[in-house]
Amino acid sequence: MAVTPSTCPHRLLPLFLGLFQGALLLFFALFVTYDDPPVQAEDANLMANHLYRIFPFFQDIQVMLVVGLGLLLTFLPRYGFSALTHNFLLLNFAMQWALVLQGLLRLLQHGQVHLDLHSLLIAEFAAVTVLISVGAVLGRTSPCQLLLVAACEVPAYLATEWTIITHLGVLDVGGTITIHVFSCYFGLGLSKALFGAARQQMHPKETPSHRSDFLSLVGTFILWVFWPSFVAVLCQPGDAQHRAILNTLLAMSASAVTTVVVSSLLDKDGKLSPGHLQNGSLAGGVAIGAVADMAMPPVAALALGSLSAMACVLGFRFLTPFLARKLVLQDQCGIHNLHGLPGIVGGAASAVAIAVASDDASRSHFSQLALVKGNGSEVPGGLGGGRGVGRQALYQAAGLAVAVGASLLSGLLTGTALRLPCLAPPPEQLCFEDSLYFKTQDGAESPGPAGTAEEGALALKERV
Amino acid sequence: MAVTPSTCPHRLLPLFLGLFQGALLLFFALFVTYDDPPVQAEDANLMANHLYRIFPFFQDIQVMLVVGLGLLLTFLPRYGFSALTHNFLLLNFAMQWALVLQGLLRLLQHGQVHLDLHSLLIAEFAAVTVLISVGAVLGRTSPCQLLLVAACEVPAYLATEWTIITHLGVLDVGGTITIHVFSCYFGLGLSKALFGAARQQMHPKETPSHRSDFLSLVGTFILWVFWPSFVAVLCQPGDAQHRAILNTLLAMSASAVTTVVVSSLLDKDGKLSPGHLQNGSLAGGVAIGAVADMAMPPVAALALGSLSAMACVLGFRFLTPFLARKLVLQDQCGIHNLHGLPGIVGGAASAVAIAVASDDASRSHFSQLALVKGNGSEVPGGLGGGRGVGRQALYQAAGLAVAVGASLLSGLLTGTALRLPCLAPPPEQLCFEDSLYFKTQDGAESPGPAGTAEEGALALKERV
Amino acid sequence: MAVTPSTCPHRLLPLFLGLFQGALLLFFALFVTYDDPPVQAEDANLMANHLYRIFPFFQDIQVMLVVGLGLLLTFLPRYGFSALTHNFLLLNFAMQWALVLQGLLRLLQHGQVHLDLHSLLIAEFAAVTVLISVGAVLGRTSPCQLLLVAACEVPAYLATEWTIITHLGVLDVGGTITIHVFSCYFGLGLSKALFGAARQQMHPKETPSHRSDFLSLVGTFILWVFWPSFVAVLCQPGDAQHRAILNTLLAMSASAVTTVVVSSLLDKDGKLSPGHLQNGSLAGGVAIGAVADMAMPPVAALALGSLSAMACVLGFRFLTPFLARKLVLQDQCGIHNLHGLPGIVGGAASAVAIAVASDDASRSHFSQLALVKGNGSEVPGGLGGGRGVGRQALYQAAGLAVAVGASLLSGLLTGTALRLPCLAPPPEQLCFEDSLYFKTQDGAESPGPAGTAEEGALALKERV
Repeated sequence: MAVTPSTCPHRLLPLFLGLFQGALLLFFALFVTYDDPPVQAEDANLMANHLYRIFPFFQDIQVMLVVGLGLLLTFLPRYGFSALTHNFLLLNFAMQWALVLQGLLRLLQHGQVHLDLHSLLIAEFAAVTVLISVGAVLGRTSPCQLLLVAACEVPAYLATEWTIITHLGVLDVGGTITIHVFSCYFGLGLSKALFGAARQQMHPKETPSHRSDFLSLVGTFILWVFWPSFVAVLCQPGDAQHRAILNTLLAMSASAVTTVVVSSLLDKDGKLSPGHLQNGSLAGGVAIGAVADMAMPPVAALALGSLSAMACVLGFRFLTPFLARKLVLQDQCGIHNLHGLPGIVGGAASAVAIAVASDDASRSHFSQLALVKGNGSEVPGGLGGGRGVGRQALYQAAGLAVAVGASLLSGLLTGTALRLPCLAPPPEQLCFEDSLYFKTQDGAESPGPAGTAEEGALALKERV
Repeated sequence: MAVTPSTCPHRLLPLFLGLFQGALLLFFALFVTYDDPPVQAEDANLMANHLYRIFPFFQDIQVMLVVGLGLLLTFLPRYGFSALTHNFLLLNFAMQWALVLQGLLRLLQHGQVHLDLHSLLIAEFAAVTVLISVGAVLGRTSPCQLLLVAACEVPAYLATEWTIITHLGVLDVGGTITIHVFSCYFGLGLSKALFGAARQQMHPKETPSHRSDFLSLVGTFILWVFWPSFVAVLCQPGDAQHRAILNTLLAMSASAVTTVVVSSLLDKDGKLSPGHLQNGSLAGGVAIGAVADMAMPPVAALALGSLSAMACVLGFRFLTPFLARKLVLQDQCGIHNLHGLPGIVGGAASAVAIAVASDDASRSHFSQLALVKGNGSEVPGGLGGGRGVGRQALYQAAGLAVAVGASLLSGLLTGTALRLPCLAPPPEQLCFEDSLYFKTQDGAESPGPAGTAEEGALALKERV
Repeated sequence: MAVTPSTCPHRLLPLFLGLFQGALLLFFALFVTYDDPPVQAEDANLMANHLYRIFPFFQDIQVMLVVGLGLLLTFLPRYGFSALTHNFLLLNFAMQWALVLQGLLRLLQHGQVHLDLHSLLIAEFAAVTVLISVGAVLGRTSPCQLLLVAACEVPAYLATEWTIITHLGVLDVGGTITIHVFSCYFGLGLSKALFGAARQQMHPKETPSHRSDFLSLVGTFILWVFWPSFVAVLCQPGDAQHRAILNTLLAMSASAVTTVVVSSLLDKDGKLSPGHLQNGSLAGGVAIGAVADMAMPPVAALALGSLSAMACVLGFRFLTPFLARKLVLQDQCGIHNLHGLPGIVGGAASAVAIAVASDDASRSHFSQLALVKGNGSEVPGGLGGGRGVGRQALYQAAGLAVAVGASLLSGLLTGTALRLPCLAPPPEQLCFEDSLYFKTQDGAESPGPAGTAEEGALALKERV
């Protein structure tokens, strides 16, 4: 039984993507170049060293996003193909779109656009926010809708990130506030505006199977392993980067153990919930980003990892059902528990860490940081320019508030736009269903009455 | 129901492999040594630095070949074990065989064989050609036949690679011409000579299942992530390598998006085909190899990625059925679409890129390259020695022609040799079937009439 | 049908883990700090370089342990979730516990504990022994029992490792003796003491399925790819590390081919056994550890790889059934074949390699090594201090004996402690069963009589 979406909209996806690729080519042809090769041997050496430092981190992050996050999203048993592929497509589209937007900015500022691995990395971070946000509406959105989300979220992220990091001078080397908190509340706003007050019934295909939960857990573990690279890639090389790596490792290790403790305590038989493991183990990585390179004792990283894992698991158990009941808020992947709560815990921790840090130690530390993150743009009233420690703590809190506010607003607006009927939202009975988007072996899944019993048995066995 | 190959040939595999291992040990014992440790501290430092540069690339390539390509080949639902294992076995055998052949050459030239990570890498590249070629005959060949393919293809590759790179001075840092084009046409020649004009019927086990397609797609994504390492590992460190990485990333990103566009356009309902995604996403990586380190604008990488993905997907849709009909040519994995067409696109692009490059810029660039790739062997009439840009473009085209010709010829010869009946080709009804080569749980797959209904149900559930 | 463990013990796991996390936080809060950032720019540079050298190795090892070993252990079809998760939990718990024990030692010696990436790596190695040992009792032990194993094995390992490496001055850069041999015999002692003389019947859920064997093989290949990083991470940078990488690559390649030869010869139809492939391919990596950085010809690495793979496969075929029959010894994962036999082969090889090495060459080599491994602690009578080559060979043999003896003893004691009934051993009929520890979709697995036929069919299809 072939599954057909309404006739017109299924050409929208290739049309939109094709036009975008054409525009991308045009933009690159007109404006984008590589840096000239360095003339001095010394410069060439420096550049080579920089490349060998950043490239392994970059590859780790690519594995995280394409394979790790891709697998994590395949917990819906009949939606694995779509989850994996849409994640991959969105990553590429959003990265290209971020390159264009960044390029336009540089074009206005400098009259030219030089591309290097660092710009690709920044563009990839912008794409990450999209990949996280769409977790809230996984399975109930068409690829066209997802592309529109990317088209809206990337500029919103770039503007918010500029406000928080460059304008407010907030310290957030691992993207706790700018990436995780932002993308979470964008996703929740999106979901609320898209689905409105219509209470969704539990869909029969929404329940993870043993097998889909298993592959999803493998995805979690891939993310868990490479997370230190994500947090530390933009740190100042040397001591700060070393500390960021260690702090992330400690936080994630504490998260893993704490998740098991809390998940087991919440069940009357002491059994673990796969969903808790898939998310709680990573909570420490989300929370540590804002403080990873700060001069704080190792115990703080452990405590932060434990605390954020607790918040995540308790969020799944109590907050998600509460929000679904009271606010009629749908959050398919539980991004509020993995990115929202730990993000807020981490953002608050960064304010506390700065407030309790001794004035001297932190000032020297912050001025170091300012050198790295400034990238030539001056931080107005930044610590390098004499901002006090107490004031910096306030700025961290302000950054958190800006992230929540800007993301909720832009998410709500985007979600409203997504209700356009031409974007081909999947009909309710075909939600969470690969066959709507992929030419897979239908026969194998549902041997119809036309097939003989033998064929049906063969088809079932083939699938097994 | 036990599946038994004919009595004699099943001892051929261990016999052949065992003898080869013995010969390998003998050869290594007599002739192969490691380099002496450097005496000067400075040399030791240089060497350590070289190691730390090349080793992460090497590991990435190992992951690509063993895990990524291994999984990509498991799209046949009942042949996953064999595809994964044969790929692994062939990689090891072909690499060892390439080490022996390389060693013999060095022995004749220098009287001794020094082994280092670079020689292993070159041997691994030789092995890659085998892994690609056998994709054309996947599922219809026995391990003995595959080993014979490796035994014949590795020397053919080494000779062709020497002719193209060292003798003709063709520029092909990522192996577009020497690896991808060569291995594709070798595989097609092999398939043609092996199966002749016998039109193969569609085999009932040939259809991918949802699950096998899914794991195959995960394999694609692993390849996609690590491809830049494959292309850039042999580049000159610094600027050229940086550019090769960026070009590969851009080409593969464009491929990913273009594949979705074209695959969706080709389907009347706009649905995506898993096979297109599995291959088209990688086409840009195949094509970019010949030009990755050249001084060309970033837009060229994007365009090449888009163009090769188009060629790949259109090839699956139109060319493969055409070739199967007209030439009775079997290409199980579609290697012509993933390696042949993008390889030709990339090879042609390298000639064009050189022809349009300004004389000055490219000459300085090429002379740089010659320093790296020369490895002490002089390039006859190479650019370093004053070859003009126009002439170099012709040489690129000549290299492409040599690759196609040499591979077709050697592939046809190898395929003829493969028809020897003692090589235990699988009988038609047992093609694409793991149980021919592996002691897996037969009972679980086909609960026979002997088992009770309960056992059958348990077995089916076990498999799920 | 809900599966419930006895009422009390299911709170033991979170209680124990929670208390441990609290103690860990307290210990870190009181005693553990990071190194002060280096003041001199030169020192900072050195440190950064050290970090960039060790971090990629560290990440490779994390992938091996969390993803590779995790998947390898999922060969039991209904126990995949538990195998993967318990491995992950044990890794984290044992690493934290090793950090505490190491910290206590340093506290007593130096009055303070500085944490860096190197200490985490050493702690991870201690955790590896636990992950290997519990393979002997996989599926028949509760998480509480596994944690107790970790609690006992980590101190036993640290003491044994100190005796072998620091006190006896044994050379074992890749952990062949200290990690593999130790953990194997610890695991066997554990199994013997835990299950006693009760002959276990073959459990119906103990048979691997096609699918679970497939994922397990993927795990093997991930381990295979990254193994060189595990062996070489602690080598002296430069020549020794380069040699260790090459030797490991050669040994593992020989193992892969030899495994196919021997497994095929052992079967009357020449078919391969998945279990042989999953383990034999890795045997060379286990054996090479003790000699990887020594000045020996490459052929020795190949021979060692072949020999250890032979030992491993023959062990599965003949020794495991023999031990099960004669000693009533249960070894679920066959750790004796993968870690015990190849470990002994490797340990013996290290004695032979040293004995045949020319006095001069090896002395200069060993004194180099001593500089690295000493870490400030003097090696009593070590080669740096003039120990002869013949005597060092004896010390290698002594190290092997110490590893076997200490591990058997501590394993037997631990296994006895594991018989405490409060540790909630799984009841026989629920062994090898995820549903005892995880809230997975029971309905999907066994549609009970309450469900309609339609629900049952849907559930079965969901799982497929």
